[in-house]
Amino acid sequence: MTRSVDLNADMGESVGPWNMGDDTALLDVVTSANIACGFHAGDWNVMAATMRAAHQRGVGIGAHPGFADLQGFGRQRMHVPRESLGNMVRYQMGAAIGMARANGAHVRHLKLHGALANMAAEDHDLALACYEAALSVDPDITIMVLAGTAQQAAVADLRCNAACEIFADRAYNDDATLVDRSLPGSVIHDAAEAASRIVEMVTAGAIIAQSGRRIDTRIDTICLHGDTPAAVDIARQVRAGLKDSGVTLARFQGAPI
Amino acid sequence: MTRSVDLNADMGESVGPWNMGDDTALLDVVTSANIACGFHAGDWNVMAATMRAAHQRGVGIGAHPGFADLQGFGRQRMHVPRESLGNMVRYQMGAAIGMARANGAHVRHLKLHGALANMAAEDHDLALACYEAALSVDPDITIMVLAGTAQQAAVADLRCNAACEIFADRAYNDDATLVDRSLPGSVIHDAAEAASRIVEMVTAGAIIAQSGRRIDTRIDTICLHGDTPAAVDIARQVRAGLKDSGVTLARFQGAPI
Amino acid sequence: MTRSVDLNADMGESVGPWNMGDDTALLDVVTSANIACGFHAGDWNVMAATMRAAHQRGVGIGAHPGFADLQGFGRQRMHVPRESLGNMVRYQMGAAIGMARANGAHVRHLKLHGALANMAAEDHDLALACYEAALSVDPDITIMVLAGTAQQAAVADLRCNAACEIFADRAYNDDATLVDRSLPGSVIHDAAEAASRIVEMVTAGAIIAQSGRRIDTRIDTICLHGDTPAAVDIARQVRAGLKDSGVTLARFQGAPI
Amino acid sequence: MTRSVDLNADMGESVGPWNMGDDTALLDVVTSANIACGFHAGDWNVMAATMRAAHQRGVGIGAHPGFADLQGFGRQRMHVPRESLGNMVRYQMGAAIGMARANGAHVRHLKLHGALANMAAEDHDLALACYEAALSVDPDITIMVLAGTAQQAAVADLRCNAACEIFADRAYNDDATLVDRSLPGSVIHDAAEAASRIVEMVTAGAIIAQSGRRIDTRIDTICLHGDTPAAVDIARQVRAGLKDSGVTLARFQGAPI
Repeated sequence: MTRSVDLNADMGESVGPWNMGDDTALLDVVTSANIACGFHAGDWNVMAATMRAAHQRGVGIGAHPGFADLQGFGRQRMHVPRESLGNMVRYQMGAAIGMARANGAHVRHLKLHGALANMAAEDHDLALACYEAALSVDPDITIMVLAGTAQQAAVADLRCNAACEIFADRAYNDDATLVDRSLPGSVIHDAAEAASRIVEMVTAGAIIAQSGRRIDTRIDTICLHGDTPAAVDIARQVRAGLKDSGVTLARFQGAPI
Repeated sequence: MTRSVDLNADMGESVGPWNMGDDTALLDVVTSANIACGFHAGDWNVMAATMRAAHQRGVGIGAHPGFADLQGFGRQRMHVPRESLGNMVRYQMGAAIGMARANGAHVRHLKLHGALANMAAEDHDLALACYEAALSVDPDITIMVLAGTAQQAAVADLRCNAACEIFADRAYNDDATLVDRSLPGSVIHDAAEAASRIVEMVTAGAIIAQSGRRIDTRIDTICLHGDTPAAVDIARQVRAGLKDSGVTLARFQGAPI
Repeated sequence: MTRSVDLNADMGESVGPWNMGDDTALLDVVTSANIACGFHAGDWNVMAATMRAAHQRGVGIGAHPGFADLQGFGRQRMHVPRESLGNMVRYQMGAAIGMARANGAHVRHLKLHGALANMAAEDHDLALACYEAALSVDPDITIMVLAGTAQQAAVADLRCNAACEIFADRAYNDDATLVDRSLPGSVIHDAAEAASRIVEMVTAGAIIAQSGRRIDTRIDTICLHGDTPAAVDIARQVRAGLKDSGVTLARFQGAPI
Repeated sequence: MTRSVDLNADMGESVGPWNMGDDTALLDVVTSANIACGFHAGDWNVMAATMRAAHQRGVGIGAHPGFADLQGFGRQRMHVPRESLGNMVRYQMGAAIGMARANGAHVRHLKLHGALANMAAEDHDLALACYEAALSVDPDITIMVLAGTAQQAAVADLRCNAACEIFADRAYNDDATLVDRSLPGSVIHDAAEAASRIVEMVTAGAIIAQSGRRIDTRIDTICLHGDTPAAVDIARQVRAGLKDSGVTLARFQGAPI
């Protein structure tokens, strides 16, 4: 049996003359790109350029909506009514779809950003509101979710196309939540360690917690970061490690959970 | 022979708790609505509500993009590079299409707003940049243009679907440009006068200038305003006048010029 | 002994062409105006015009900062780091002071807006962060606080100039908190009732809860609303009622609690 | 006779997590910092941090207002009514003054940014509107102007404190305008050349055009850039060259022209 996995990263987070991340380097590593939609990062020109670059390399394109909080990079929690949240997702996803189409490309997936993603990982109803909104724009879209969270439960309820994600550089607790960033070992800085850990999880079909405990889960995609040189190095080693282990790297096949 | 004409007005220009215009009243008058896309006016919730209301009444939905200048209501000219202008149009049009689809509706046309529209009426290349951008998102979209301006020349070049527009409440010069607002008689405030004038132009198939001169033109749609009670009254009387003259009021049939 | 009390209301909440509230009517009623600073409402022109109008009438001017969330009118809670909150207050207060000075006026007080105010009423540390920030710009500024809340406790700690506020149109619980809006009688819609209730509280020097219980408190100012005709009517009757009872209406004298 | 000159550069142009420029390096080179005020760049936290860093090093602080166009970095011309332009300047300058005061510092000067500066260099009335606005907030502020432009003429009319500026890295035409960027030699990339040229101009008390022609002018400050490593290198060599030539580097003494 051949295992296949997707590698995804956030991109298109530059704004006007302000650069963020090394998208060019990352596009050679990932198979899917989560592209900011102009609310928490990105702008109309950055979206267009990033989508063209991703499309040229065969990298799958995802809409990556966040809160309307550029100064806070979408990382500050905001308490927005559910209907307004849904409309924010619809608006940003529509913008992404329009921009992709104008560049001969296609939006395959949706992934929530930052504080909005964190809230959806904890709050089933909020996740449902966001994902139903996305499906109202495109019922075939694949929703990328954090494995083992309320995000995953929501897509299971919705029976929509989904892609389950684990982190390359974060340690897990026994209940599949992330080890708090303030605790030792919570963030993995060593590229070789991150790579071997991901190979182990993908081949096992399970999250392997810090304690060694295995939590069976579908793993469709690995979340990589690219905002520092070290992050790009981890991304490359994870990719190399998976290939060396016989895992195929390819865009996810979204399917209901 | 039966004449048919469309009536259009700008809508969805409220923002958060700030109201603008009487959209509910106008939706009973017009056959097409130009809906703000969140840059110069409107927001994700206003767009959604306005599209639903228009769709329920069979009013055609248009994307109405403008400059990213909420404080200036998109009425301040900005010198934006052509490629960036195109991407601004793509982004806003995509957002409108996504929002419409989520509400079971469809974006039929595009009309530029405010200073962007004024610049496109004078500058053929700028008009081309905006309209090519719109067509790159949806090649079947109808572009609504000011009759007799560089906007119209641009859609003629593009051979795309177009709808030619005249104003209900503005006087025309002999070259089909608008009489400057600072001159007497430039803006028509009397509803009966506006109505009889529009009936005359639509039945003649021509702009009739202040001097009485006739300028033959295709007239597909009449631009109405709705930001004051007087404007809504003009809109209603124009509608009534046209019906009384045997003109059918219906959504435009976009066709190449 | 002559009692004196201040009447305050939020103003300058229009944005570009979008109007909110009837500031002209309110300026004849109040003695202090809380003027939006462009983040949750208002803009540079609205601030200037509102300050000039207030100054001409001898109405005291206050900076009224809120979250950087125009679409949500600053009513959506945002989780912003304390230092950033402080800088938001400093920035908005500085803008208000500069605009006042340019118009020959002076910013006498600071009052937090919307969700930021609600959070400060519950969270002593957050209130401290905001108020210390304001005092770092002007150590003599008077901080307007909701009587009986964490806001009041914070200004007591800071020993700064303060003005204690009660609501004209909200019922109180026995612990000086507001009766929840979902409960009957929580919001007072009858102008005469609001007026007689305020007269009773001001002359008693106490909040009088829905139960009739008296909670002694300093009352320096009454918060009025002006966003509806009914609200303006309540404002006028409160003013008239206080005058009829021999209470002097005058700008507050900020003093430490 | 001892000559003294100021070195200025734009700073505080980072936004949230987006960095721009190497402010730390530049602060060791310049004697005055033009600090973005949150409209075209910067935010409340960046302003605070930049002002603190400048103040600690004895670098003079200036407010650097621009158009409300973050995406375009204030480099896109906008046609804003004069009164609104003035209020934009008042607002941003007030915010800067408040933030400076909160950090124990003081705003000494005002310099316009980007497209607003370019427009003021060409349009005397526009320059007057902006500078009168600044003086209405602080009549003692020094206005930093481009030598030989409508900016300089405006401050001469106003008889306010002024500092005349030349560019370290741009060639001049015989009428003191800048050589168009599209022409060869218009931008000086060689640090040694920039340095020797500036030393020559400062010691001569004149702009020396590309043709060799001398245009006598007051030179109070040299405009440096810091957005690239090469720019920082030019800045350092200009500083070193001036010191080697016996020119004192010190904050300008603003005085009427």
